[in-house]
Amino acid sequence: MMVSTAKEVVYLSLCLCVCQVRGSHIPEKMNRTIQNLLRTYNIGALERYNGTPVFPREPLVDSMEVNKMTFMGGVLETYEKLFGQMLEQRPNLTPPTAGGREGLDSAANAVPGAGDDEVRTDLMYILGKIQDLRRHRYQEQSKLLQRLHDLGKVQMDDRTIQSKALGELPWLYAEASSLSSIKKQTRRRRRQARKVIGHQ
Amino acid sequence: MMVSTAKEVVYLSLCLCVCQVRGSHIPEKMNRTIQNLLRTYNIGALERYNGTPVFPREPLVDSMEVNKMTFMGGVLETYEKLFGQMLEQRPNLTPPTAGGREGLDSAANAVPGAGDDEVRTDLMYILGKIQDLRRHRYQEQSKLLQRLHDLGKVQMDDRTIQSKALGELPWLYAEASSLSSIKKQTRRRRRQARKVIGHQ
Repeated sequence: MMVSTAKEVVYLSLCLCVCQVRGSHIPEKMNRTIQNLLRTYNIGALERYNGTPVFPREPLVDSMEVNKMTFMGGVLETYEKLFGQMLEQRPNLTPPTAGGREGLDSAANAVPGAGDDEVRTDLMYILGKIQDLRRHRYQEQSKLLQRLHDLGKVQMDDRTIQSKALGELPWLYAEASSLSSIKKQTRRRRRQARKVIGHQ
Repeated sequence: MMVSTAKEVVYLSLCLCVCQVRGSHIPEKMNRTIQNLLRTYNIGALERYNGTPVFPREPLVDSMEVNKMTFMGGVLETYEKLFGQMLEQRPNLTPPTAGGREGLDSAANAVPGAGDDEVRTDLMYILGKIQDLRRHRYQEQSKLLQRLHDLGKVQMDDRTIQSKALGELPWLYAEASSLSSIKKQTRRRRRQARKVIGHQ
């Protein structure tokens, strides 16, 4: 009796924690900064709500939690690149004096408008928040994404690569087959274990 | 007593199944075909074993099973492209008659050597095996990989995209934060549940 009550208490408090986390929002300063930036990067409502978001949310809804996190790692990575690009496009990296080559040096001498400076600070703040989240809580996902990116660099038309890949195929195919079988077995075992516990 | 014995039997037989799967090999015909192809696509042992495999195995060793499967989905996808490329490079797609444009039509009239035909058949057989495995047992991973590829197509320098992405950030950042927190909570909950069961 005592044990089951204790279990209920633990369960309830865990639920509450999870709900709190589920309902979590972004830091207020971050939200304010985004709203600031949206005034600079404004587009019409028709364009904004045209039914094609940049980051579709479906995969987050229907897939497993671990896969959601991998996708989210990819989203954070894309945001990092995007903010990098937005910073590059800011006026104070293209100073009023001519001369493409000395761009970076003369950027220091350029006198940007106060507005530009503020936008730059805002962009860097948001970029920092995204980098922090990715580095501290999406390490595993970042590593996996790097491995996947590396696969894209395989030189398909190189004869040495073709031959090596052929030689590596037996082990990889066997591993890929057994991995997917183990997953099925694990699912079945979990179902059975749940049944056994239910019967007890 | 009966229950615990039954549980032991179930556990043992499951272990045996898993071991069987773990030790699984590739179909014999597939192995033979790969060895055939390796005679055509031969390279020296020094090149083959130079310490840089096409598909490094470390991520399979140190990461979680679900992440392993995602990576393996990527490997299978890469093999599909690779075999596609190898098929394209086979001589009977570049017929002896001149004329680049009618390549596909005249390919039917080309008379490839018997060896070429065999290599082509072997390549198509292996490609089919890989496609089957990916379609039937790596569906979820393929979907995830497609979503990740789509992220790579985001037009970073487009002002509309920049603005829309900014607008989508509050929800996505909150979701990314809460997902990683939930994962931590779940781990902690599992550890606690295991302790409770241990004490009972």
